[in-house]
Amino acid sequence: MGTQEQVLEVARRARQAAAELAPLPRAVKDAALHAIADALVARSAEIVEANAADVARAREDGTSEYMIDRLSLTTDRVAAIAAAVRHVASLPDPVGESVRGYTLPNGLELRQVRVPLGVVGIIYEGRPNVTVDAAALTLKSGNAVLLRGSSSAYESNTALVEVMRSALAGLPADAIQLVPGRDRDSVKHLMRARGLVDVLIPRGGASLINSVVEESTVPVIETGTGNCHVYVDADADLDMAVGILINAKTQRPSVCNAAETVLVHRDIAEAFLPRALRALGEKGVTVHGDAAIRAHAGEGATVVEATEEDWGTEYLSLDLAAAVVDSLDDAVAHIRRYGSAHTEAIVTTSQSAARRFTALVDSAAVMVNASTRFTDGEEFGFGAEIGISTQKLHARGPMGLPELTSTKYVVTGDGHLKGA
Amino acid sequence: MGTQEQVLEVARRARQAAAELAPLPRAVKDAALHAIADALVARSAEIVEANAADVARAREDGTSEYMIDRLSLTTDRVAAIAAAVRHVASLPDPVGESVRGYTLPNGLELRQVRVPLGVVGIIYEGRPNVTVDAAALTLKSGNAVLLRGSSSAYESNTALVEVMRSALAGLPADAIQLVPGRDRDSVKHLMRARGLVDVLIPRGGASLINSVVEESTVPVIETGTGNCHVYVDADADLDMAVGILINAKTQRPSVCNAAETVLVHRDIAEAFLPRALRALGEKGVTVHGDAAIRAHAGEGATVVEATEEDWGTEYLSLDLAAAVVDSLDDAVAHIRRYGSAHTEAIVTTSQSAARRFTALVDSAAVMVNASTRFTDGEEFGFGAEIGISTQKLHARGPMGLPELTSTKYVVTGDGHLKGA
Repeated sequence: MGTQEQVLEVARRARQAAAELAPLPRAVKDAALHAIADALVARSAEIVEANAADVARAREDGTSEYMIDRLSLTTDRVAAIAAAVRHVASLPDPVGESVRGYTLPNGLELRQVRVPLGVVGIIYEGRPNVTVDAAALTLKSGNAVLLRGSSSAYESNTALVEVMRSALAGLPADAIQLVPGRDRDSVKHLMRARGLVDVLIPRGGASLINSVVEESTVPVIETGTGNCHVYVDADADLDMAVGILINAKTQRPSVCNAAETVLVHRDIAEAFLPRALRALGEKGVTVHGDAAIRAHAGEGATVVEATEEDWGTEYLSLDLAAAVVDSLDDAVAHIRRYGSAHTEAIVTTSQSAARRFTALVDSAAVMVNASTRFTDGEEFGFGAEIGISTQKLHARGPMGLPELTSTKYVVTGDGHLKGA
Repeated sequence: MGTQEQVLEVARRARQAAAELAPLPRAVKDAALHAIADALVARSAEIVEANAADVARAREDGTSEYMIDRLSLTTDRVAAIAAAVRHVASLPDPVGESVRGYTLPNGLELRQVRVPLGVVGIIYEGRPNVTVDAAALTLKSGNAVLLRGSSSAYESNTALVEVMRSALAGLPADAIQLVPGRDRDSVKHLMRARGLVDVLIPRGGASLINSVVEESTVPVIETGTGNCHVYVDADADLDMAVGILINAKTQRPSVCNAAETVLVHRDIAEAFLPRALRALGEKGVTVHGDAAIRAHAGEGATVVEATEEDWGTEYLSLDLAAAVVDSLDDAVAHIRRYGSAHTEAIVTTSQSAARRFTALVDSAAVMVNASTRFTDGEEFGFGAEIGISTQKLHARGPMGLPELTSTKYVVTGDGHLKGA
């Protein structure tokens, strides 16, 4: 079989599995998740061994130690992955939830209930734990999953999927499948499997996501890039503003909800900037500032000249773009022009400023006096997340289990006829 | 300007208008809708005159009288269109609705609120009233709309949009725009305006919808085709089954929620089919039956042999495919294989059969003892609808005003830092 036929074959099997999964009650799915967790722990030696082959190849390829650390699995890490699966089992089942229900004037009883999406394809880079996390969340929500991980983690992913499938006693093993093929071709065929695959969720860098969005005929949920802003209002509490800025930028700079730009109201610039720049400098942050920012660069601060490109850059590093703005509305205009609509924060003591900022900023999450770092499924109380959507259709912001469902209407009558 | 530049230009203007519309309170939008309704009535002579040009051209082109009737506007029809706009004004505003809200363990207050989608593109065939209906619904939900109607209604649509825009005092006129160009090129450019247009909703025949789904890089909400099934269970009430089947097939055969196939349980076939086939015959329905159906064809019935193609056909006419099945599960399998996941109905007195059918059938709407014809935004109590989604992402089934919105998270703290 060619790659295309192989991909379509797994998609067809996933479709069949999805039909069997959809009506299953929670207890059956949770039992399978616990069996998966048990199997991961019991067979962790095997998994670690398969992972060693990926790690060895990555070393030969001259991969950085940072990336090798992300790729590496140990017995402890496998145990942590298994614990995450048990946690997913403990979460409520979204399937069957009635999201709307009433009796119509003619006596028809209408209920809108959550149902699984069907077949979910996940295209991801990065760590092998995503393989298990994604499988657990899709299984819990009654979906079949097609996993297409990074080719650098191919041996690890193959082992993890094999162990998970072996634990699916009573459930269709094809609920969890790896997409065959290691080259880009298999991704291409997955993106064209409309009618077999219900949704694709790409997780990874901007180039991966853009190529999926451009080429896919299967509906896509776009995740990720975060060019997040912190706006320090004229009426900000200075301690709070410095605290939030440092946290948003430095607490974990490599993630999508880290701040990439600070915008400072002109009226507070003189009071705020010397302190903020010093604090950023202490944390090793390089500030890419406009002229007004650079005018406040003092001892201990690293400030370079910002270019137009800086305003649109997701650094994911200890770099921060910085500009002084004349008003809240100018801050909003800047965000609208350069932002990625992920998360923006305002620091202010003014109720009217908070109200205007949250009304005008059109991002997945708007923080008032809180760090941008809180945009996260766990932090939001969803228990887990499959990614953070930066698009407006279907799901926006952190996606938990309900975002892996659709709905259907169930309408009950006693012989109701239209127009009768 | 070339067509592409013209389309991008209206999309950019729509984007700007959308930013201005998003924070508007309900009263402002409702006032604009009433002004639109007033203007449509006041200038109906102008609209009817423009429409006459379309009608004259359609006659020259040899268009059928049925299509000409659909295209034609009279003063009364314009008044009815205006009344529909006032009705939209009377509906609740979905924007600002809090769909989820709680305080997190760390004290952060989280609210998920409805916001407009932004720029909505509607690509439609058919009647010019859609131009006004779609504009009213998108405006009410705070969106800017790009309208791309049938070229056969170009003069009518141009007049209607001009009248509506002139009534938008105080609101950005670019909230409502016609996409320039009468050829397919302008549709193509609209489908590639990713980043400017937030969603495309094609309304019309299967070929229009498929081409949008295949070619668009803008997210699409698929509407429409309905190969709807009525399943008559072994335990059905015969009178009810005949009533529902006749209503679902014949009450308005040309619409997507009309039934196209009946599936009859073998155990009830002998009691049900002679009556049903006679009743269908009286209504002028041609039944395309399998061998078991044809065995029951008696006087007054028109029954022809069904081919494989019949099972997948949306007739939209007084034709009906019919098959006898051995079990409820076989009916479900048939629906899964040939259906379009729009609406299916079961007629049964058995609680367990109803429960199993609604659990296993994966369609936008599942009717128990009710006609498929009830799948409709008005019937479901939504007040109006922009179309019926047959896809699983974002919206499924009849789409009302809330389905024209996205959400954002507003999270409020008092200096909350992650990991602190």
